[in-house]
Amino acid sequence: VTERAAADLRRVVALAGGVGGAKLAHGLAALVGDRLTVIVNTGDDTERHGLLVMPDHDTVMYTLAGIANRQWGWGIEGETYNADEFLAKYGQETWFRLGDRDLATAMVRTARLRDGGRLTDVVRGLQRAHAVGPAILPMTDTPVRTEVRTDDGWLDFQEYFVHRRQEPAVHEVRFVGVDAARATPEVLDALATADVVVLAPSNPFVSVAPILAVAGVREALSDARGRGVSIGAVSGIIGGKALKGPADRMLTSLGHEGSALGVARLYAGFVDVFVIDRVDEALASAIEALGMRVVVTDTVMDDDPGRARLAGELLAAVDGATRTAA
Amino acid sequence: VTERAAADLRRVVALAGGVGGAKLAHGLAALVGDRLTVIVNTGDDTERHGLLVMPDHDTVMYTLAGIANRQWGWGIEGETYNADEFLAKYGQETWFRLGDRDLATAMVRTARLRDGGRLTDVVRGLQRAHAVGPAILPMTDTPVRTEVRTDDGWLDFQEYFVHRRQEPAVHEVRFVGVDAARATPEVLDALATADVVVLAPSNPFVSVAPILAVAGVREALSDARGRGVSIGAVSGIIGGKALKGPADRMLTSLGHEGSALGVARLYAGFVDVFVIDRVDEALASAIEALGMRVVVTDTVMDDDPGRARLAGELLAAVDGATRTAA
Repeated sequence: VTERAAADLRRVVALAGGVGGAKLAHGLAALVGDRLTVIVNTGDDTERHGLLVMPDHDTVMYTLAGIANRQWGWGIEGETYNADEFLAKYGQETWFRLGDRDLATAMVRTARLRDGGRLTDVVRGLQRAHAVGPAILPMTDTPVRTEVRTDDGWLDFQEYFVHRRQEPAVHEVRFVGVDAARATPEVLDALATADVVVLAPSNPFVSVAPILAVAGVREALSDARGRGVSIGAVSGIIGGKALKGPADRMLTSLGHEGSALGVARLYAGFVDVFVIDRVDEALASAIEALGMRVVVTDTVMDDDPGRARLAGELLAAVDGATRTAA
Repeated sequence: VTERAAADLRRVVALAGGVGGAKLAHGLAALVGDRLTVIVNTGDDTERHGLLVMPDHDTVMYTLAGIANRQWGWGIEGETYNADEFLAKYGQETWFRLGDRDLATAMVRTARLRDGGRLTDVVRGLQRAHAVGPAILPMTDTPVRTEVRTDDGWLDFQEYFVHRRQEPAVHEVRFVGVDAARATPEVLDALATADVVVLAPSNPFVSVAPILAVAGVREALSDARGRGVSIGAVSGIIGGKALKGPADRMLTSLGHEGSALGVARLYAGFVDVFVIDRVDEALASAIEALGMRVVVTDTVMDDDPGRARLAGELLAAVDGATRTAA
């Protein structure tokens, strides 16, 4: 059923952040190949040593290229850190660790942007070099930078996320530069021609929300729903805990319920199918009451088959919803 | 005698290019420590992957820091090339190989220049990070780029030197940007307070000549001689062959004698002491006829003691010339 459903789908678009997004994208790519387009968050991009580092884009790219570090989920398998050691010697801040190969990615990207390249074109070139089939599209070509307000004031996202290990409670989130940002033609085209749209199990506040905040994205999603496309989402919260990152703590510190239900409420109104983990089965009826169809399954993507299985169940449910609606 | 002479000297200034210059500088530093100042050629600097690479400066810096690759003379001992492999994958030209640590040097330099730093200040900071005692001064803070005219037309220096392995015959040399270049305050101060000035056994056309071509340098050398400072030079040509690089072939293709005498003629009029190798002893009287005092010794700097010995003989001879003149 899953395989046939996937084969029927023409275009799948996933909105994704970092590690969780990359894993789901990998599962989706295993099913639909380059009929998948991933729209990635650029709000946690950062300048390091004069280079543009794009953690979410690069994590998805390395994962789809099959070269991501399996244990960490980010970075490159077998990576070395010899440049980083020298950077530290030169007095550079190196709490954001960058491997030698990863720095090469940032170097080439930065050089091509300085030569006048457009962000989307530049990163598409990097993806092709890694023989990545699906398009990985930055949500916008202009800089957007996520900041979080803590008891220590507003912090750059990576200062909060990496340097302070997500320890300060987050009271507010903002996306600096988002007012000037526009969805790219590629993003709008992907959404306009999508048969299925899915939100990856990424942090709703700092991975998914920045994408939705870019002018044109919500309208395009709304248009897609208007023509019968369903939107699916996977909860990244399992038994009240985020598999990775601070989404569970951010839910509560931002005034929401720290559970899959809390995430579902954030997506109520534009998500049609919501996938939760078996351990959260008790939340299903409350989520259904929000107007969503609920799928209960194993949402931990331990290995490649696990990624493809979850992707398949998600696609089947969302596609089923599409057909029902149609 | 050598040790005492070295101890007496207050300030030694060396004009240097890459590997040969780095070796002599290393020998000089062993004798006079941070009373040595090295003025380096920047004409073979190059932009790679958006980063400013300074081969001569970095070779001298790594050599004085004791971390240079002993076999090659350039690069860093134990260097890795993982970023370079990725750069190639991304379609970057990688015939100019850059190690992971070396790229970190270029990254930090480029980032600090883009932040508004002055070249001399930026590289002095890098040198301090490596605990290098002697100051290594770029000849100027603005870009100068050496180009050579071959049968294939004008070539960037590194295109000729690295990519084409110095194979095309050189008919002409030019230093693009040198008209706008000025010697830095640090370079002028070093020359104004020098007790001894030496030209390293570097290529006269593409290592020493660019330094001499910068406005202010020849005048400062002339002023130094006016106050009784002698200038010494070491021939990089031994038995008609350059120890490294194309200096021997450039001598002949540019219309000079391909020998230490050919080099001496280029320096006649402002160099007081000329050091040649034992194998070239027969040239001594012809060089003396140019008005130079000639020192005949072993000029191959095989190891650290060899570097310090040559540096000591050079200093003793130049200092002796100074005292005789005074």
